[in-house]
Amino acid sequence: MDQEDLKEIVDNLRFLIAVNDKPKLKTLLLSTHPADVADIFTHLTEDERDFLFALLPPDVASDVIVELDDFHRENILEDLQEDRLSELVDEMDSDDATDVVADLPEEIADKILQSIDKQDSAEVKELMRHDEESAGGIMALEYVVVNQESTVDDAIQEIRKKAEEVEDLYYVYVIDNDGKLVGTLSLKALILSAGKKKVADVMERDVISVHEGIDQEEVANVARKYDLVAVPVVDAHDRLVGRITFDDIVDVMEDEASEDIHRLAGISIDEEIHEQSVFKVSRVRLPWLLVAFGGEIISALILNNFEHTLKQIIIAAFFIPIIMAMGGNAGIQSSTVIVRGLATGEIGLLHIKRQLFREIRVSLFNGSVCATLIFLIVGFWFKDINFGVVLALSIFIIMVMASFVGASIPLLLKKFNIDPAIATGPFITTANDSFGLMIYFALATLYLLYIS
Amino acid sequence: MDQEDLKEIVDNLRFLIAVNDKPKLKTLLLSTHPADVADIFTHLTEDERDFLFALLPPDVASDVIVELDDFHRENILEDLQEDRLSELVDEMDSDDATDVVADLPEEIADKILQSIDKQDSAEVKELMRHDEESAGGIMALEYVVVNQESTVDDAIQEIRKKAEEVEDLYYVYVIDNDGKLVGTLSLKALILSAGKKKVADVMERDVISVHEGIDQEEVANVARKYDLVAVPVVDAHDRLVGRITFDDIVDVMEDEASEDIHRLAGISIDEEIHEQSVFKVSRVRLPWLLVAFGGEIISALILNNFEHTLKQIIIAAFFIPIIMAMGGNAGIQSSTVIVRGLATGEIGLLHIKRQLFREIRVSLFNGSVCATLIFLIVGFWFKDINFGVVLALSIFIIMVMASFVGASIPLLLKKFNIDPAIATGPFITTANDSFGLMIYFALATLYLLYIS
Repeated sequence: MDQEDLKEIVDNLRFLIAVNDKPKLKTLLLSTHPADVADIFTHLTEDERDFLFALLPPDVASDVIVELDDFHRENILEDLQEDRLSELVDEMDSDDATDVVADLPEEIADKILQSIDKQDSAEVKELMRHDEESAGGIMALEYVVVNQESTVDDAIQEIRKKAEEVEDLYYVYVIDNDGKLVGTLSLKALILSAGKKKVADVMERDVISVHEGIDQEEVANVARKYDLVAVPVVDAHDRLVGRITFDDIVDVMEDEASEDIHRLAGISIDEEIHEQSVFKVSRVRLPWLLVAFGGEIISALILNNFEHTLKQIIIAAFFIPIIMAMGGNAGIQSSTVIVRGLATGEIGLLHIKRQLFREIRVSLFNGSVCATLIFLIVGFWFKDINFGVVLALSIFIIMVMASFVGASIPLLLKKFNIDPAIATGPFITTANDSFGLMIYFALATLYLLYIS
Repeated sequence: MDQEDLKEIVDNLRFLIAVNDKPKLKTLLLSTHPADVADIFTHLTEDERDFLFALLPPDVASDVIVELDDFHRENILEDLQEDRLSELVDEMDSDDATDVVADLPEEIADKILQSIDKQDSAEVKELMRHDEESAGGIMALEYVVVNQESTVDDAIQEIRKKAEEVEDLYYVYVIDNDGKLVGTLSLKALILSAGKKKVADVMERDVISVHEGIDQEEVANVARKYDLVAVPVVDAHDRLVGRITFDDIVDVMEDEASEDIHRLAGISIDEEIHEQSVFKVSRVRLPWLLVAFGGEIISALILNNFEHTLKQIIIAAFFIPIIMAMGGNAGIQSSTVIVRGLATGEIGLLHIKRQLFREIRVSLFNGSVCATLIFLIVGFWFKDINFGVVLALSIFIIMVMASFVGASIPLLLKKFNIDPAIATGPFITTANDSFGLMIYFALATLYLLYIS
């Protein structure tokens, strides 16, 4: 749906709400894809959303909830009665139900878990044991599994039995008598195999799975690397315990990329783009601004210490911005390439030495270019060759140092299993500013001593 | 495969290469997943890679090529003989074959296209007509399609016929007599339906497709929004012309996110993480460093104009870094949130006013906090209330201005259909530095006039 269609539907809905034409509203909403309804909801006021949401039957309403962004989802859920909530949770797949229940206040969550279907409730409780960002935390319990002793016909029978429960089906998983995952069977293979054949004879034995404890980013990288539309999840004994499907994998990829991009810009990971409360947005941004603020107060203290030098060579002040900018940009380039490479798995720990060496070589080259340029500019502009040397040397040292710091800190963090993305953004830049100015003014002071 | 397994295999391979044990090398490579072989190749020298690659039979070799990153792929392909190249391209799906052929020098590409299977060659030529980053440019021609008049048994027959050609099959597409896409049929529905039923009676009629001309980022957003493992592609007359599968969709998502992250850091879009040539890396980074360099030379000129003010209030120089950092960080925060929201489709053009207003409110709040802090610090430190006011006012104005510029430029670019990501990174930051310093020193000069 493009922006014009969207605008038309939103206007249409607003008109129908104004004239309170519920039957027409319902027809319009039901003829729209739940993902589009979710999209439309982000353009309405809270009252309009609540009014429309109440018109949706439980199966559609639960689809819309699943498609909504976190901000609008919470916004709708917090206004619902408990019986309506139970109705919705009952309609959801186990993973989505778990996400919703986990976000509810404990008291309400308990009530919901008591009122929904017993098996569903047990499943949600089981899934809630896992860390939200682990494979176990994002897997669902809806899948089709058969024993390796069974036949193709048995597998088809099993699919029929679970047809309603398992909406998106791509593979049937095959286990042995201990529950261990031993193979997968694509639906295509099922369709093309004779019914009496044993599953063990037609299944794919090289099955790739992930352990329930691994991080969701790792799951996405596995799915991408091996081109899996659904990733089976196993426990410590290699027993099949769940599966993660395409739609959740792409959501993880999107979230993890947004997280890295936001961290790089000095925004905590959980800024909601639709959040309109100034204080809530400020809470995720201000801390990083204050990190930069504190760092630059240190820079001010450093400059204060060089007051004498500054007074003697006032033109030194003119180049404070370029010293900061060149160090900052060179550092960010190096740290970003490393952080992103580590996140996508393109750089492994075995590549460390090579990548670090590469960043140093590049910074030596780029530093030389910028140093030469500043030397020429200052030479022509102020006719001061000596100060040109001071400035060129400073820029060169600072760019190489910033690149080295920018590249090595994320690699170091990764080695100690800390998310390297925290190394980008304000931290490194601010530290580079202080060090850079110190080097610059130390060299300028030496130069003063030398010429006097 | 974790890093330790990887290291063991790499060491193992190196040993076997040293003793030239080709049979064992071949066995080891063939028992390893092609995606893992591709991974292993990034840890070897060029000679080792070429040696091992020559041992692979065409079907495995072509899988490895498809899984490799661009840098290593080109590195291997450029050393291959034409007949080996033809053999590999012949094994590939149409989309992968097109990618490989499109990267070859024209003369060699022509020879390859003449030597491979006639139909394959026609398909590659057809696909090469499309823009590389459009839906048409990433789609493949391997899919199963049936007429709506046919039966479920016919559809299964068609799957059997195309079983080898279409490896990953999730949906059968249904067309009418004009070739128009009118429905999809999941394999699950096929398995569960009686053979004599008409396809038109069991298919899903609400089919979501993309036009061949739309941008690949849009394709990924559609797949993610509607949870599609394969997206059908249609031409201007709604006729089915191709399909884009899961593996290509996640690759697009990954590439687009990397592109945005890199642009944010001032790196042109096509930096290859495995590229080891200093000049090639420098070519994508140096231009942005020079943008910053040029911008900060302008800052130096501005400061030069305020030399008198600087001499009178030397402490004004101490706060140049904080002025730059606060403007820079506030601007980057705003522009990053907007650029990322536009890229994922979370912000649409209908949200513009609301999001812009949100950024301004947040910056007014954060600006007030930082302004108050600097006022207190300068007041206590230098006991200079008046200069504290100048500094506080400057920081406030600059943070609000930087946020406004950072938020509005990407929105403006989007409105004119230019990629908003070019607005992040060095451009905005450098411009904010110059404006910020101008405002700061203009206020400081006014203050000088006022106290004298």
